[in-house]
Amino acid sequence: MSDALRIGVAGLGTVGASVVRLLQEHGDQLARKSGRPVRVSAVSARDRGRDRGVDLSSMAWFDDPVAMARSADIDIFVELVGGESGAAEDSVRAALQRGLHVVTANKALLAKHGVDLALLAEQHNACLNYEAAVAGGIPIVKTMRESLSGNAVSRVYGILNGTCNYILTRMEDEGLSFEACLADAQRLGYAEADPTFDIEGFDTAHKLAILTSLAFGTKISSDTIYVEGITSITTADIHAASELGYRIKLLGVAQRTESGIEQRVHPTMVPKSSAIARIDGVLNAVAVDGDFVGEVILVGPGAGGKATASSVVADIADIARGDETPVLGTPAAELDDYVRAGMRKHAGGYYIRLAVYDRPGAFAEIANCMADADISLESIVQRRNGSAASIERAEPQPVILITYETTEEAVKKALDVIQSKGVVAAAPQMIRIEKLT
Amino acid sequence: MSDALRIGVAGLGTVGASVVRLLQEHGDQLARKSGRPVRVSAVSARDRGRDRGVDLSSMAWFDDPVAMARSADIDIFVELVGGESGAAEDSVRAALQRGLHVVTANKALLAKHGVDLALLAEQHNACLNYEAAVAGGIPIVKTMRESLSGNAVSRVYGILNGTCNYILTRMEDEGLSFEACLADAQRLGYAEADPTFDIEGFDTAHKLAILTSLAFGTKISSDTIYVEGITSITTADIHAASELGYRIKLLGVAQRTESGIEQRVHPTMVPKSSAIARIDGVLNAVAVDGDFVGEVILVGPGAGGKATASSVVADIADIARGDETPVLGTPAAELDDYVRAGMRKHAGGYYIRLAVYDRPGAFAEIANCMADADISLESIVQRRNGSAASIERAEPQPVILITYETTEEAVKKALDVIQSKGVVAAAPQMIRIEKLT
Repeated sequence: MSDALRIGVAGLGTVGASVVRLLQEHGDQLARKSGRPVRVSAVSARDRGRDRGVDLSSMAWFDDPVAMARSADIDIFVELVGGESGAAEDSVRAALQRGLHVVTANKALLAKHGVDLALLAEQHNACLNYEAAVAGGIPIVKTMRESLSGNAVSRVYGILNGTCNYILTRMEDEGLSFEACLADAQRLGYAEADPTFDIEGFDTAHKLAILTSLAFGTKISSDTIYVEGITSITTADIHAASELGYRIKLLGVAQRTESGIEQRVHPTMVPKSSAIARIDGVLNAVAVDGDFVGEVILVGPGAGGKATASSVVADIADIARGDETPVLGTPAAELDDYVRAGMRKHAGGYYIRLAVYDRPGAFAEIANCMADADISLESIVQRRNGSAASIERAEPQPVILITYETTEEAVKKALDVIQSKGVVAAAPQMIRIEKLT
Repeated sequence: MSDALRIGVAGLGTVGASVVRLLQEHGDQLARKSGRPVRVSAVSARDRGRDRGVDLSSMAWFDDPVAMARSADIDIFVELVGGESGAAEDSVRAALQRGLHVVTANKALLAKHGVDLALLAEQHNACLNYEAAVAGGIPIVKTMRESLSGNAVSRVYGILNGTCNYILTRMEDEGLSFEACLADAQRLGYAEADPTFDIEGFDTAHKLAILTSLAFGTKISSDTIYVEGITSITTADIHAASELGYRIKLLGVAQRTESGIEQRVHPTMVPKSSAIARIDGVLNAVAVDGDFVGEVILVGPGAGGKATASSVVADIADIARGDETPVLGTPAAELDDYVRAGMRKHAGGYYIRLAVYDRPGAFAEIANCMADADISLESIVQRRNGSAASIERAEPQPVILITYETTEEAVKKALDVIQSKGVVAAAPQMIRIEKLT
């Protein structure tokens, strides 16, 4: 058996500590499988005194991850520091420049600097593995980089943020408000004190940017993603969706179209019968549509120290076996430019909820606006809510429209006209419907 | 870029023809990703004249796959002949002995000779890849061999036969009999003219035998699997299961227990809320429970020429990249012996359907038999079926029992006693309940 592979772990939060523990608990099994013992020989974190429940006594300690990347006696640098730049970026660059292999769980770093880092890694014959950066414990990076490499991918989509899925699931199951579910998610540690990054869809967008590159062999383009979070979703929407046979999920979708590649993150109506509709709670799921394989879906834990450590260690084991894959599936120098398909051309069905003033002709005006924009309606649901008194007062009544396939441009235009006519009491709610089998 | 990797494809049925087509259609993409062009340079099949919709003119033709394995000018031998011995086995052995890499979709061959062939491959520094042998287009072999290699697996289970799942799904959805659904499956090409191999669970058992070895690092042991097919499942069972919150699926399950490893294939009651319950039609799904990752589930097409070709080509691409993995995850010489946990010790809940003679004391006798065997009952459902006249004639009435966790031994003993007392009109139906989250 070869010499031990020496690992340096930068960042000893829940993931880092779990990686150290996994390598200690299952080191023998891993050595047997990969043909090479793996040993953590250096670690880096801010607070040396903190008890992390693992024995670090045999490892060299570095206060600074960049110093560890530059000088530690290691073969693989594991970056679990986090952040799209700063110490994470500096240490990864330093490690790759030395020809060290790098394993990272850092989606923000890859979304921003992925192509650059891939070039650097490939110039130095170093591996850059990042299974844990997308969907935690789910092996979607390897599946796309290797298992589906013979397919032309037409679409990749998924539930990539457990916080949002937890909130949407509880809103539906228990009829609770967004705010109440978010507060619970924070209490349970599923959401940060500042939840913006999760609930506004940015976390999903980072992961999607990586998946898009893997799916289509294009350069990562995270700044061009259409991003809409879940804060505008109400229990009324969830209830109406359910009555119409849909669930609402925050999806990240990348799809090849005639005009380029769409990358979009938004609340999405998915048919209840679809597999993705049935992913509940903090779980993640990613689906890939390939021309030969059809659709493959992977489901599992998208976060958590132990699940994420499972992916980090799989990346390490690949390096131990000598398995080298282009960082983004295709060699970085050969990636195609990303050609963006703008959202206005997005084609699909739409759910529209309007608060319509209860007066003669209002509904006819709405119907005319839709017809003028060439939008056909699949369903129209108007149900009076509230008491006889509220009807007497002519309070706005909710009207739900489901369109047949049309374009984003047409819908936006129609809704602008409807608003300008003064027949609705509030800005319309609009949720895209994803075509799924 | 390196020299082209030369492929010999033995067997040109739907899968073989799809592999040739995939390599022709996506050859450039594959070469870019794996760093090496891949080219089919030899083929073998019985009938040279048949039109397979692909251009074979540039390839050397062999009538005999063994001759091709022995003498063709190739780097990889792709075995798509089928069968657990004969030409498939002979050609694979011949290829490995020459040091050729082998890719196969042949589950029967691996279930029977997998350890032997793995030893042979590893002695000759050859790869033996078989992603397509388990669950068609789903990348479960790579996931277990590589992505989850850091985990101690406690259980792997799945829906591994699309024919059975199609039949069970239609029986539930449309209330049709087993026979009617089987006939439809045959008409649609989902089932063979002789469906025994599928519906009696043997196909599932072959795939399970491979998964067990990958999960636990043990030698393949396909002869010791407990196998029970779906022919005894009635619409009455499916209906009763549904009322109690379950679906019936044919599962293959391998599970570590205190006394060894259980390998079992049988109709299984799974909670409707579980992910596996929601896999409908010809789809396959495999779930792996690992100590770090938790549960990961992969869903996709388990059969079909194109989906299977996707997996065959992924195996080829791995070889093109130079990725070498022990055939069964662990080097074959280091696999542990398989220690069988007998079915009598199997612990779980049970569904029992009895046809009870409608006379005083019958039910008390059944309850006493269960109590004597120390079996606690979670539910008892007795609903008179048929007309007042049938009740008048004291025809047997169905009684459904759901037990709490007990052992197979206790259940079998209790059911034997119940039958010996003459209170039931037919052999009891017994379906195991799988504990799932």
